[in-house]
Amino acid sequence: MSESPVSTATPAARDQRLYNFSAGPAVLPEEALVEAKDELPVYDHVGASVMEISHRSPAYDKIEESAREHLRALLDLGEDWHILFLQGGARMQFYQVPLNFLPEDGSADYVVTGRWGVKALREAQRVGNARVAASSKHEDFRHIPPVENWDLDPDAAYVHITTNETVNGNQMRDDPVLDVPVVTDASSELLSRPMDLDGYGLIYAGAQKNIGPAGVTLVLIHDAFLQRRKQPLPTMLDYGTHAEQRYNTPPVFPIYMVEKVCRWLRNQGGIDAIHAINRRKARKLYDRIDETDFFVGTVEPEARSMMNVTFRIHDPDLEPVFLKEAEQRGLLSLKGHRSVGGIRASLYNALPEEAVDALVQFMDEFERAHG
Amino acid sequence: MSESPVSTATPAARDQRLYNFSAGPAVLPEEALVEAKDELPVYDHVGASVMEISHRSPAYDKIEESAREHLRALLDLGEDWHILFLQGGARMQFYQVPLNFLPEDGSADYVVTGRWGVKALREAQRVGNARVAASSKHEDFRHIPPVENWDLDPDAAYVHITTNETVNGNQMRDDPVLDVPVVTDASSELLSRPMDLDGYGLIYAGAQKNIGPAGVTLVLIHDAFLQRRKQPLPTMLDYGTHAEQRYNTPPVFPIYMVEKVCRWLRNQGGIDAIHAINRRKARKLYDRIDETDFFVGTVEPEARSMMNVTFRIHDPDLEPVFLKEAEQRGLLSLKGHRSVGGIRASLYNALPEEAVDALVQFMDEFERAHG
Repeated sequence: MSESPVSTATPAARDQRLYNFSAGPAVLPEEALVEAKDELPVYDHVGASVMEISHRSPAYDKIEESAREHLRALLDLGEDWHILFLQGGARMQFYQVPLNFLPEDGSADYVVTGRWGVKALREAQRVGNARVAASSKHEDFRHIPPVENWDLDPDAAYVHITTNETVNGNQMRDDPVLDVPVVTDASSELLSRPMDLDGYGLIYAGAQKNIGPAGVTLVLIHDAFLQRRKQPLPTMLDYGTHAEQRYNTPPVFPIYMVEKVCRWLRNQGGIDAIHAINRRKARKLYDRIDETDFFVGTVEPEARSMMNVTFRIHDPDLEPVFLKEAEQRGLLSLKGHRSVGGIRASLYNALPEEAVDALVQFMDEFERAHG
Repeated sequence: MSESPVSTATPAARDQRLYNFSAGPAVLPEEALVEAKDELPVYDHVGASVMEISHRSPAYDKIEESAREHLRALLDLGEDWHILFLQGGARMQFYQVPLNFLPEDGSADYVVTGRWGVKALREAQRVGNARVAASSKHEDFRHIPPVENWDLDPDAAYVHITTNETVNGNQMRDDPVLDVPVVTDASSELLSRPMDLDGYGLIYAGAQKNIGPAGVTLVLIHDAFLQRRKQPLPTMLDYGTHAEQRYNTPPVFPIYMVEKVCRWLRNQGGIDAIHAINRRKARKLYDRIDETDFFVGTVEPEARSMMNVTFRIHDPDLEPVFLKEAEQRGLLSLKGHRSVGGIRASLYNALPEEAVDALVQFMDEFERAHG
């Protein structure tokens, strides 16, 4: 018997939730969704849904404060860290970071380990002098250059890294502590593992992987780093604007969902507990990939991502067959990013371990049928 | 008997929807909320909620395409108009408009008729030469300078106006057609009345009034105006980036709600039908305000907003009493903006006419008790 939630024998059961390996927007905890359902069309006795109340109302204040408290507890953020809920995704951060911190007469270092790092670098180069301190582009981002080989400029304003590359499927093993503040695009890994915050000045993440739905960008910024920003800046793009106050109408519903996701995560036992599950999920899948030569991992073992597992089939003609049959089995969104092809299973916090078990079982069956 | 949905005699009925006069985020059509509720935690047989699917998936494509089609039909937008779903609210547009269109060696004209126009002007002045072509600031924005009195520069890159001022409660009667393209902040009125598009180059609106929930900004841009933008620009802030393609992860859930709101509006008969209702709603309330000297409108009759009705009580000490008793009667969020005080009833499309009737009845009773 298949463990996947829908077998081809029961195609009628189409209203149930299937196993969703989407890279983002991605699976959310079912509890959070059911709670949101229960709170429509009236939220908590306020006479309106959460989407219809003022962002200056006590009801919304409570939601946003609760989201902040959960994040502070989950990541052990001291009071010297600001928590900002911004808009525009990581893409806007690619611009906002150098706009705030790359001085006209200075430079910043970029470590490029995948598609997103390339884009962050390119946007920074439109603002000023952004140097490549290290890159694994010539090796298709199959590995991550070790920190001791990074060509760092001690006078750089910051070092920008991408701790997890969603498309290429690699992930740094350690949080670097360098002579200058580190800025990381942690979109696909924030809240999935314990982080050593010591080296960071700024951490940003589009919510739509481990944190919530699309439409809100989480930015964590250390106060000492914030104080280094250039002035003047466009009001909305100045991190200081949002560190000081709730300046403009926030994306209320996405933040409301972030609060639920963070609360769920604390109920699971927090970051350490989810990290143990995430490691187990990733190990199961990588072990299956490595078991035979039928499946081939695209990243060297020491740089493999726990969140985005990228692999190929030894015979690429079988990949569309694999993806189609997986979909029929209720294993959704396993197609690799359009820029690289292949197969990608994203194993975010909210993806249940049974989903990985079902995928592994399907891989076994598929190899038996086609191997 | 009171017509308000909850009388003080039935305080237990706290799970029902009350009459919500919030200026934004604001009331949405109940049908749209109930549909969203029904579509949690699984959307349309896709095995996941709408928040958990790829923004490159056919299911999401269909939602966004449908939203565009509805908007095109509602506003009679030709193919020479681009429809963009951006982030950051009108506040970001205050910067993005001059960033794209205010040349270093040129200028733009600003017509300032309220709090938001002041802020748009200020942000543009950080980018370049933004002139004040007209202003009613010295008269507390109680009226709108007639277009024939605007001191327009024929060489201006554009003329920026605010067709409806949410805080001050005024609204322009006509869509100006000038020698240069007009840009309007239509946040609180877009979709509430027919618009003559001829004079416009760009129309922007935060969704959280008549269009949808907070978290998405609707930008309509005419192709001929788009082609005038400066180059190069930061990728995310270049209108061309988003006119050409779905560039980055959009705020999926807010756009999904926009689709529902626009579909609801077409089912109501479209813009002409809602406009007739909006006029009737506003007339009822202004008639009540003008009936005696107890209530005092803050805007001259010829400039009064159909969307945001601002008024005072002749004795300001009665205002907190009025607001408290209104709230107890299930008439929510009638407090004027913190910058101006007083009372403000926002009568957006989704506010049922019965809500206005209930407010008028409460005003009658309040005046009898306190007059």
